[in-house]
Amino acid sequence: MAATAPSTRARIYDMFRHSNVGHSGRRWRAFHLLVLAAGLLAIAISSIDGLPPAVDVFLTMIVVLVAVVFFGEYLARLWAAPEAARFAGVSDGMARLHWALSVDGLIGLLAVFPVVAITFGSVQASHEAAPVFCVFWILKLSVHAPAMTTLARVIANERATLASVVIIFVMILVSAATIAHMLERELQPKAFGNIPEALWWAVVTLTTTGYGDVVPQTVGGRMVGSLVMVSGILVLALMTGILATGFAEEERRREYLRVWDQVTRVPMFAELGTVTLSEIVSKLRVRHYPPRIVVVRRDEPGDSMFFISEGEVEVRAPRGTVALRQGGFFGEMALLDRLPRSATVVTTQPTTLLVLYASDFYEIAANIPSLVESVEREARRRRAENLGEPAKVESS
Amino acid sequence: MAATAPSTRARIYDMFRHSNVGHSGRRWRAFHLLVLAAGLLAIAISSIDGLPPAVDVFLTMIVVLVAVVFFGEYLARLWAAPEAARFAGVSDGMARLHWALSVDGLIGLLAVFPVVAITFGSVQASHEAAPVFCVFWILKLSVHAPAMTTLARVIANERATLASVVIIFVMILVSAATIAHMLERELQPKAFGNIPEALWWAVVTLTTTGYGDVVPQTVGGRMVGSLVMVSGILVLALMTGILATGFAEEERRREYLRVWDQVTRVPMFAELGTVTLSEIVSKLRVRHYPPRIVVVRRDEPGDSMFFISEGEVEVRAPRGTVALRQGGFFGEMALLDRLPRSATVVTTQPTTLLVLYASDFYEIAANIPSLVESVEREARRRRAENLGEPAKVESS
Amino acid sequence: MAATAPSTRARIYDMFRHSNVGHSGRRWRAFHLLVLAAGLLAIAISSIDGLPPAVDVFLTMIVVLVAVVFFGEYLARLWAAPEAARFAGVSDGMARLHWALSVDGLIGLLAVFPVVAITFGSVQASHEAAPVFCVFWILKLSVHAPAMTTLARVIANERATLASVVIIFVMILVSAATIAHMLERELQPKAFGNIPEALWWAVVTLTTTGYGDVVPQTVGGRMVGSLVMVSGILVLALMTGILATGFAEEERRREYLRVWDQVTRVPMFAELGTVTLSEIVSKLRVRHYPPRIVVVRRDEPGDSMFFISEGEVEVRAPRGTVALRQGGFFGEMALLDRLPRSATVVTTQPTTLLVLYASDFYEIAANIPSLVESVEREARRRRAENLGEPAKVESS
Amino acid sequence: MAATAPSTRARIYDMFRHSNVGHSGRRWRAFHLLVLAAGLLAIAISSIDGLPPAVDVFLTMIVVLVAVVFFGEYLARLWAAPEAARFAGVSDGMARLHWALSVDGLIGLLAVFPVVAITFGSVQASHEAAPVFCVFWILKLSVHAPAMTTLARVIANERATLASVVIIFVMILVSAATIAHMLERELQPKAFGNIPEALWWAVVTLTTTGYGDVVPQTVGGRMVGSLVMVSGILVLALMTGILATGFAEEERRREYLRVWDQVTRVPMFAELGTVTLSEIVSKLRVRHYPPRIVVVRRDEPGDSMFFISEGEVEVRAPRGTVALRQGGFFGEMALLDRLPRSATVVTTQPTTLLVLYASDFYEIAANIPSLVESVEREARRRRAENLGEPAKVESS
Repeated sequence: MAATAPSTRARIYDMFRHSNVGHSGRRWRAFHLLVLAAGLLAIAISSIDGLPPAVDVFLTMIVVLVAVVFFGEYLARLWAAPEAARFAGVSDGMARLHWALSVDGLIGLLAVFPVVAITFGSVQASHEAAPVFCVFWILKLSVHAPAMTTLARVIANERATLASVVIIFVMILVSAATIAHMLERELQPKAFGNIPEALWWAVVTLTTTGYGDVVPQTVGGRMVGSLVMVSGILVLALMTGILATGFAEEERRREYLRVWDQVTRVPMFAELGTVTLSEIVSKLRVRHYPPRIVVVRRDEPGDSMFFISEGEVEVRAPRGTVALRQGGFFGEMALLDRLPRSATVVTTQPTTLLVLYASDFYEIAANIPSLVESVEREARRRRAENLGEPAKVESS
Repeated sequence: MAATAPSTRARIYDMFRHSNVGHSGRRWRAFHLLVLAAGLLAIAISSIDGLPPAVDVFLTMIVVLVAVVFFGEYLARLWAAPEAARFAGVSDGMARLHWALSVDGLIGLLAVFPVVAITFGSVQASHEAAPVFCVFWILKLSVHAPAMTTLARVIANERATLASVVIIFVMILVSAATIAHMLERELQPKAFGNIPEALWWAVVTLTTTGYGDVVPQTVGGRMVGSLVMVSGILVLALMTGILATGFAEEERRREYLRVWDQVTRVPMFAELGTVTLSEIVSKLRVRHYPPRIVVVRRDEPGDSMFFISEGEVEVRAPRGTVALRQGGFFGEMALLDRLPRSATVVTTQPTTLLVLYASDFYEIAANIPSLVESVEREARRRRAENLGEPAKVESS
Repeated sequence: MAATAPSTRARIYDMFRHSNVGHSGRRWRAFHLLVLAAGLLAIAISSIDGLPPAVDVFLTMIVVLVAVVFFGEYLARLWAAPEAARFAGVSDGMARLHWALSVDGLIGLLAVFPVVAITFGSVQASHEAAPVFCVFWILKLSVHAPAMTTLARVIANERATLASVVIIFVMILVSAATIAHMLERELQPKAFGNIPEALWWAVVTLTTTGYGDVVPQTVGGRMVGSLVMVSGILVLALMTGILATGFAEEERRREYLRVWDQVTRVPMFAELGTVTLSEIVSKLRVRHYPPRIVVVRRDEPGDSMFFISEGEVEVRAPRGTVALRQGGFFGEMALLDRLPRSATVVTTQPTTLLVLYASDFYEIAANIPSLVESVEREARRRRAENLGEPAKVESS
Repeated sequence: MAATAPSTRARIYDMFRHSNVGHSGRRWRAFHLLVLAAGLLAIAISSIDGLPPAVDVFLTMIVVLVAVVFFGEYLARLWAAPEAARFAGVSDGMARLHWALSVDGLIGLLAVFPVVAITFGSVQASHEAAPVFCVFWILKLSVHAPAMTTLARVIANERATLASVVIIFVMILVSAATIAHMLERELQPKAFGNIPEALWWAVVTLTTTGYGDVVPQTVGGRMVGSLVMVSGILVLALMTGILATGFAEEERRREYLRVWDQVTRVPMFAELGTVTLSEIVSKLRVRHYPPRIVVVRRDEPGDSMFFISEGEVEVRAPRGTVALRQGGFFGEMALLDRLPRSATVVTTQPTTLLVLYASDFYEIAANIPSLVESVEREARRRRAENLGEPAKVESS
C-alpha cells in the first residue's frame, strides 16, 4: 500500500481542500451541502411533537445516515492528513494528530460523536439530544462560506475600533437601563424593577428591534427611550462605516492576489516587467465560470474584454465556431471600436477569465502602449480573417 | 406591406426598447406606467369584500381594459421582434419565437393570459384569480427600473461574498433557533416547541424587525436574543458594506461608458487622442434633461460648466437670447473667473449635457492645457462680444 | 428715503441670507431658532386637553407673538427683496413679486396667514387650527439645515438610481401583500382580507419596523414574511450604498469650492499658479470657529497646521501672547519636527481657518517644494526669535 | 522625597496615560476593566428585590471596595498630575488643580464621591443611590475605547452636516406627529390625543423600532406611518453615509501618523528622504501584537511582509530558530517569489510591526526601486545562508 497510497491519498486530500475550485472539490462541496441540508432539515422536523412514528423513524434514519457520511469524511480526511505536510519530514501519526486537534478536525469529530447517543440511547434521549447535533453540524456550513476568512481578517484588522464601538454600545446600554430603571420602576415594577430586567429593554430598543413587550410609560422614560433609539441608529451607522471601509480594503488586497495568481498563465502578460505588471494586475478582475455559461452574447453592447487564464471557451460567430484556450483573449472589439459583440462566447469547461473593463483599458492604454498595440494587432488579424474574434484558432 | 413595413416596424421596435431615451420611448413608458398603476389599483380595490356591484363591474372593466392594452403591446412587440436581428440573416418566424421565449416575452404572455379567466370564468373565479394577475403585472414594473441591471451585475460580481454572508445568516439563524428552542420550550411550548417554530422567532429578531409576537422569557433565551439582535446589526453592516462598494464600482464603470457614448458628439473632445480623452471621460458626468428645464440660473453661484452632446438650450442673457446646439458649451465663466452665472440657460428639447465640475476642471487643466486654452479663447470672444455665454450663436 | 435706503436695505437683505456666516446672520438665525422653538412648543403643549385656562391663554399669546415676529420678518424681507437683483435693471415691484412667489416667500406667507384664524376665530376654532400652523412653521426649520442643499443635489444626481430602488421597493411590497393576502385571508380575514390591508403589513415588515399588530400565522405567510424582512435589509443596504457614494462625491465638490473661496485670501497661496493651486485646494479643509475657541492646546500632540483666511487668533506661548491675522499660519512645527504644540491658540473673532493635515502635507511637499520651503523659512525665523509660533506679529 | 519622587511620580503618571501601550499601562487597564465590571455587576445585581441579606451585604462590600480602588486611583493621579506639565514652570498645586478640573479629574471625583452615601447612609438610601454610581462609573469605561477620540473628531468635523440631518429628523418627527394627531385623535384619543403623545409614536416609527404599543388605525394615519418608516430608512442611510465617509478619512489620517511614529525606528526607512518616505508611509499599516502570538505560519500562503519597529520576534525555520529585533524584516519571500511562508514567526515580547501588503509592495517597487533592491539583496543573502528568513541574526 505504501507504494500506491500517495497518489490516492493526494487526490483525496485535494478533494477536501476548502479552496479547491476544480472538479472533485466542487462536486464534493455540492454533495456535502446536500447531505448537511438533509441532516439539518431532518433534525428540525423531528423536533416537532406528535409526528407519526413512521416519520420519526424515517427522520432518525436520515440523521444516522448523515452522521455516517460525516464519519466517513472524518476518517478519510484523517487518513489523508499527512499530505498537508508531505515535505516537512513529520511522521504520519504526528500529522494526523495535528489535524485531529485543528479546528477542522474537532468540528469533524463533534459532528460524528453524538451519533452514538441516537444509535444506542432511548427514543426519548435521542429526541432531547437531536438539537445538540444541529449546533455542531451548523459549524460545518462554514466550509461553504469562503468570504468568512476575509471577514475574519477585517475584524482582526479593525479590532481596536470595533472594540471601542462595543464599549460605546455597552455604555449606552448600561446607562439607559439604569436611568430607565430609576424612572419606570414605580409604574412597571415587573419590567423595570431591577437593572438586569431593564437591560433587556435597553438591548431590544438600542438594536431598534422593538418587540414591544416592555415599553416605557413615563415622560422621562420615553425621552430616554427616544435617545436610545437614535443612538441605535448612530451605532449601526458607525458599525457599517467601519466594516464597509475595512471590507473594501481587504477585498482589494484579496482580488489583487487572486489576479496575480492567474495573470502569469497568460503569456501576453507574463513577459511584462514586474512594475508594469503590478499596474495591470490592479485593473483586472478574476471571474470563475462553470461549463456551458454564456460569457458574452452576440449583438449585445459590451464594456469589457476577457483573457483566458484557465479552461476553454467556444466562440460562436456567424462564420463558424472556434475554440479558444488558455492565453487567448476575446471581446477586444467592444473596447477598440465601441461595437456590439460580434460573437457569442460559451465556456466548455470550468474556466477562469480575467476581465478588463473599458474604463480601465483606456487608462492602461495611456501607460502601457505596448499591450494595447499587441491587442490591436491581433484584432486586425481577426478582422482580416473575417473570423469574428478567436485568437488561437483550433477546430473544436 | 413588405416594402413599407420596415420603417413602421423599426419605429415600433424602437418605441419599446427599454433604453430608449427619445420622444416615443418616454411617452410609451409614461403611458405604460399609468396603465399598469390603474390595473394594479383596480385589482387591489376589487379585493375588498362588500363593494357595491357597480364598483365591482367598473373595476373588472378596468382590469380587462388594461389586459387588452398589454395584449396589444404583446402582439406589437412580437410583430416587431425581427428588428432586433435585422442583419443576422435569421428568419422572421425564428426571431419571433426567440423573443416569445425570452424573459420579456414570457412576462408579456403571462400578463395577458389570465384575462381569459376573468372574461369567461364566473364572478367568484375572477375574484379568486385577480390577485394572481397582480403578481405577474408587478413584474412589468421592472421596465421602469433601469438601475435593476446595475444591481443584477453587482450581485453577480459579488455573488461569492454575498453567498458567504447568506451562509453566515443561516448559521446564526439555525443556531439561535436551536438554542432558544432548548432554553424556552418548557415555558413557551407553543412558540419554541420545535425548531421550525423557533426559526420564525430567529428571523424576526435577526432582521431586527421584532414583531413581539414571540419573545424569550428565560434569562438564557434573552441572552441568546440579545446576541441575535447584535448579530443582526453586524449582518446588516456587512451587507451594506459589500453592496455599497460593489455598487459604487459598477456605477463608475457605467457612467464611464455613458460619457464615452456622448463625448464623441462634442467636436472639441472628439479631436483629442484616445489617451487624453479617456482621462477627461472619467471626469465628466452625463445628465439628461427634459425640455423647459432651467439648467443654470442667472446670478446664482456656479461650480460647473456644461457641454451639449444632444439637444438644444436657450441662453437668456440681459443682452438677448441665443440658442446653443450640440457641440456648444456654457457656464465656463463660473470656472475661469469664479463669478456668478451671467445668464439663465433653459432646455428647449430633450437635451443631454456633459457636466464638468470645478474640482475636476482644474485637475484637467494641469494635464491637458490645450482643452483649457480653447475654452478660454471662446470665453474671451464671448466677453468681447458682450454676449453673455453662447458659443455657436444662432437666433432661436 | 431713496437716498439712504440702499445701505439699510442692503444690511437687512444681508441679515436674512441663508448663507450669511457673519455677525448679523448668525444672531438672526439664533433668534429665529429660539422663536420657532417657542412657537412649536406652545402649539404642542396647547394640543393637550384639560389645561388650566390661564395656561391656554398664555400659550395662545406666545403663538400670536411668534406669528407677529414671522409677519415682521416677512415684511422686512419683502421690502429688502429688490437687493437680490440690484444690477439687473428690474423694478422694485417686480423683484418683490418675484420673491413673494418664491419658495421662501410662500413659506413666509403661509406661516403668517393663519394667525387671523386664531385672532378672529372662536376658541374652539383656534384649538382645531393650531396644529395646522405647526406644519407650516416646521418648514421654516429648513433655514437651519445648510446640508439640505447638498442632500437635494445628491438626490437630483442619483434620481434615476433612487427611482429604480423605489420601484424595486414597490414591487416587493405589492407582490408580498398579494401573496400574503392569498395565504392568510382565511385565518386572518381582518388583517389580510384585502390587498390594501395586506399592504400595511408589508410596509411595516419591509422597513423592519415590525409593530406586531399584524403577524402572519401560516407557514407560507411566515416564509413570505421572512423573505420580505431580508429584502428589507437588502433595500436598506442599497439605499445606503447609493446615498453614501453620492454624498461623499458631492461633499468633496462642495468642500473644494469652499476652500477655493478662502484660499485666495492667504497671500502665500494666492501667488501660486492655477494648476499648483488646484492641487493644494483639494488637500485643505475649511473650518469656521466662533470667538474664544481653543484651536490648538500647548503640549498636546498635533497632526495639522492652520492658515488664517479670515478673522484673528491669539497665540499664547510661554514667552508672551501675540495676535495672528488673515494670511498668517501656525501649527507648522507639529508637521516639520513632529513635536507637541508649543503654544495654545485661541480665536478672538469669528475666524475661518484652512487646515492642512500631516498626511497631506508630505504629499504636497513632494510636488510643490516651494511651499514647504517658505513654511520652513518662517518656522526657522520663529524659532530663532524664540517666539513660539506667530507669523505676522502684532501686539494684541 | 523631593529627590526620589520624580522617577516614582513619572512612572505612576505614565501608568495612567490612556495612550500607554507598554507593560504597566496595559496591566493597569486590564485591572481597571476588571474592577469596573465587578462594580457594575454588583450594582446591577443589588437592584434586584428580595435578595438574601448575606448577598446584599456581600454586594455592598464589593461596591465599597471598588469605590476604594477608584479613590486610590484618584489620589494617585492627582499626586502625579504635575508630571503632565513638568517643563512648563507651573507650580505643583496649580497643575493638580488643573487636572482636578479636567474631564478626567471630575469623572474620577464623581465616581468616588457617592461612596459616602453608602457608607454613612441608611440601607434604604444606599439602595436608592446605588444606580446613581452606575451612571458615573460607566463613564470610566470610556478609557478603554480609544476610537472614541476618532469618533469625536469625526463628529466635530461633520457637525454642520450632522446638524442638518438632525434638523431633517426633527422636521419629519414634528410634521408626522402633527398630521397623525389630526388624523387619529378621534379613534385613539389616548395615544394621539395631543402632539407630545403623538411624538412618541413618531420617534418609535421613524427609528423603525416599532414597539407596536401605538399603531395608526385610519387609512390616512397608515399612509403617514408608511412615509415615516421609509423616511426612517433614508435618515439611517444618510447618517451612515456621512459617518462612514468621515470615519474612513479620519482613520486614514490617524493611521498615517501612527505609521510615521513607527517608521523612523526602522533604519532602512529612516535614511530615505521625506518625500519618498511619505509615499511609503501611506502604504504601511501598524499592528501591535502581545507576546507569544504567531504572526506568520510556515507553509501558509502569504500576502505581506513585516518590518519590526519595536519588540522582538522568533523565526522558527526547519534549519533552526533565530531572533529578529527592531529594524529587521521578514516575510519578503512571499512577495518576491510568491512562495508559501518558509518559517513560522512568533513574537517574544510586546511587538509593533509595520505591514506591507503585496498589492502595495509592487506599487512602491515602481516608484522607489532602491527599497526593493535592498530587500532583494537581503533575501538573496538569506537564501544563500539557507537560513529561512531572519535578517539580523542573533541567537535567542
